[in-house]
Amino acid sequence: MYTIGYAAQRPDAPLAPFPFERRELRSNDVAMEILYCGVCHSDLHQARDDWGISRYPIVPGHEIVGRVTAIGSQVKRYKVGDAVAVGCMVDSCQQCDQCRKGEEQLCRETNTQTYNGLDRITKTPTYGGYSKHLVVREEFVLRVPDGLDLAKAAPLLCAGITTYSPLRTWNVGPGSRVAVLGLGGLGHMAVKLAAGMGADVTVVSRSADKLADALALGADKLLVSADAKAMASARSSFDLIIDTIPVRHDVSPYMALLDIDATPVIVGQVGPIDEQQTVPLILGRRRLAGSPIGGIAQTQEMLDFCAKKNILPDCEMIRMEQINEAFERMERSDVRYRFVIDMASLQAPAKV
Amino acid sequence: MYTIGYAAQRPDAPLAPFPFERRELRSNDVAMEILYCGVCHSDLHQARDDWGISRYPIVPGHEIVGRVTAIGSQVKRYKVGDAVAVGCMVDSCQQCDQCRKGEEQLCRETNTQTYNGLDRITKTPTYGGYSKHLVVREEFVLRVPDGLDLAKAAPLLCAGITTYSPLRTWNVGPGSRVAVLGLGGLGHMAVKLAAGMGADVTVVSRSADKLADALALGADKLLVSADAKAMASARSSFDLIIDTIPVRHDVSPYMALLDIDATPVIVGQVGPIDEQQTVPLILGRRRLAGSPIGGIAQTQEMLDFCAKKNILPDCEMIRMEQINEAFERMERSDVRYRFVIDMASLQAPAKV
Repeated sequence: MYTIGYAAQRPDAPLAPFPFERRELRSNDVAMEILYCGVCHSDLHQARDDWGISRYPIVPGHEIVGRVTAIGSQVKRYKVGDAVAVGCMVDSCQQCDQCRKGEEQLCRETNTQTYNGLDRITKTPTYGGYSKHLVVREEFVLRVPDGLDLAKAAPLLCAGITTYSPLRTWNVGPGSRVAVLGLGGLGHMAVKLAAGMGADVTVVSRSADKLADALALGADKLLVSADAKAMASARSSFDLIIDTIPVRHDVSPYMALLDIDATPVIVGQVGPIDEQQTVPLILGRRRLAGSPIGGIAQTQEMLDFCAKKNILPDCEMIRMEQINEAFERMERSDVRYRFVIDMASLQAPAKV
Repeated sequence: MYTIGYAAQRPDAPLAPFPFERRELRSNDVAMEILYCGVCHSDLHQARDDWGISRYPIVPGHEIVGRVTAIGSQVKRYKVGDAVAVGCMVDSCQQCDQCRKGEEQLCRETNTQTYNGLDRITKTPTYGGYSKHLVVREEFVLRVPDGLDLAKAAPLLCAGITTYSPLRTWNVGPGSRVAVLGLGGLGHMAVKLAAGMGADVTVVSRSADKLADALALGADKLLVSADAKAMASARSSFDLIIDTIPVRHDVSPYMALLDIDATPVIVGQVGPIDEQQTVPLILGRRRLAGSPIGGIAQTQEMLDFCAKKNILPDCEMIRMEQINEAFERMERSDVRYRFVIDMASLQAPAKV
C-alpha cells in the first residue's frame, strides 16, 4: 500500500513529507487509516537520535487511533470500519514466557517497536503513526471502546499505558496514597488514572503555580517541593510515587516522602540518575523501580477503564505540518498536555 | 547491677575495659549473663564514629547470647537458666502500626538500639554486648532453641536476621534463583539461609578463589564477576540478589543479572551508591531495594529455622582482649566469617 508520512532523514533534519510503501496484507494483518496520532517526547528523542539507536529515515508516532480499512484472510477480531488503536509495539515472539503471560512488552526476544524497529519477517524498518495508513498484525491491534472520543484517545496508547501499568503493578486502589512527579504528558495521565482508581493523589511540583491545574486533573492536593516545611510534613506519607520527570534528577528528596515498603517508579527518564544514599532504602525497606508500557491485554484493559470512567488526556490538536513547531514547544514544556496530530491534515498520495 | 564491658572512649581510642552499672530490674526485665557476643562490622563503624552518630563511651555488640540470671516480677516467658539472645534493638514504642504488626525494627518512633541508643525511660545511653551482663525488657529477648550451639549462635542475631529477613520478604523458596554478593559475615549467612530455604544459590565474586568456600557454604555455583563471558551468560538469570558488599560500589553490572521483575537488595553498605542507568530498571521492571533487620517475631522464626535446619555461622572465637586486633583483621576481611567473643574471657568485677 502506497502511503505518505512525515519522516526525519537525519538527526538534524526537520520532519518532512515522506511517501513510502506499507507492506501488503498478510493473512493475520489489519490495515487501517490513521485518524489521529499523539506526539510523545520519545518521538523527538528518536527523530534526533538522542539515544543513538535511530535508523533513517525515521517516521515517528506510537499513539495511534484509526479505522480498519481491510483485514487479512485469517483475521477474526476486527472488521472494516472498526475503531482501533496501536501503541508502542507491533509484534513480539509470541512464544516466550513473557509473551505467553501477556507481557509482550517484556518479550525475551524484545518486542518490535512501532517505529525504528525491524519487521520480524522481512527485516525491513517499521514506520510509525505520523502517516496516513498502517498495517499491523491482529494481535497488536487494540479496540477503541464505544464512547471514547477518538480525537483524544491516541495519547492513551503510550502516556496512558505507561502510567496505568505501574499503578496496576503496585495495586493502586481506594486508599492508596500516590504522588505524581512531573505534570506533562505522562504526569497528567498518572493523576487522572490514579484518581480514577480511587487513590488519594498528590502532585509534587517545584512551585505552587500548578495548583489549579493539578486539582482540575483530579489531584487531591499539590505539594511544593521547594517548600522545605511542607516536604518535611509529608515525610513517609506515600505508598507509591510515579516519577515522570523526563530529565536527570535527584530522587533523594522524594525518597523521604515514601512510607515503609513503598516504591518510587521511574517511567519518564531514560538515562542516568544521580547517586543516592542507601539509608532510606535500607531503613524503610523501600524499593526504587522502573516500569515500561504494559502488555496488549493490559492496554485493552486500560482503554476499557478509560471509557468506563470517561478518562481522556488533555490534548492540543495540530496539523501534520505543524509537527516541527510542536517538537520545539514540547521541548519548552509548552503543551497542556499532549499534542495530537489530526491526520486529516495529511493528504493521501495518489498511487504512482 | 555492677558489670564490666569494653568501650571506646573516643573515635581514635582502642576498646578498653570499662566498668559500669546496668539498670536495676524493672518488672518486665530479664537479666542475663552474656556468654558470647558476635563482632559486627557496624561495631567498628560506631566505635570509630564513621557514621557521625556515636555517643561516648560506647560499648558495642548486638549479637548476644547468654543465660537468664534474674527476671522481673511480671516476666512470663523466661526463667532463670534459660538460654536467650538479644539482637540489634532492645525497645520500641510498641504502639505504632509497625510495632503492632511485629515490625519493631521499623518503629515509627525508631527502635532503641542495643548500644549507642537511649533508654526510653531514663534517657541514659544503652551499652551493648561487649560486656558481662545485660538487662533487657522481656519483649526484646529471644529464646535460643534447644540444639543450637550457643558458642556459634550469636552472629545470627544480626548477620543472620539481616539476610534472613529479605529472603522472606521476597518469598525465597525451592526454585528461587538467588545470587549473593560479598562473602563476609552477612554474605556467608545469606548463602546458608537461602540454601536452607531450598533456593538455587550463586555466589558472585571477583575471582574464582572463593569457589571451594562458596560450595562448602551450600552454594550451587560461583559466578566470577571479572569474567565478562560468564557474566553475559548469566544475564537475566536471578530472581533476587542479596548485596552484602560493605563498601561503595556500582550496582549496574549486577542489575543485568536480574530477571524481569527481580530485585537486588542492599543490606551491607550504608552510604552512597554510584549513579545508575534507569534503562535496566524500566525495561525489566526491576526494583532496587534495601532491607534492615527483621522484627522480633521474625528473629525468633529465624532462630527456630536455623535450629531445625542446623544452620550456624562459621565463627572464629576470640577473647575479649583481642577485640582491637579483631577489628583490624575485620577491616582486611581476614575472618571466616565472623568473630565471636567468648565472654568467659572477661572477668566479672567485684562489686565495689
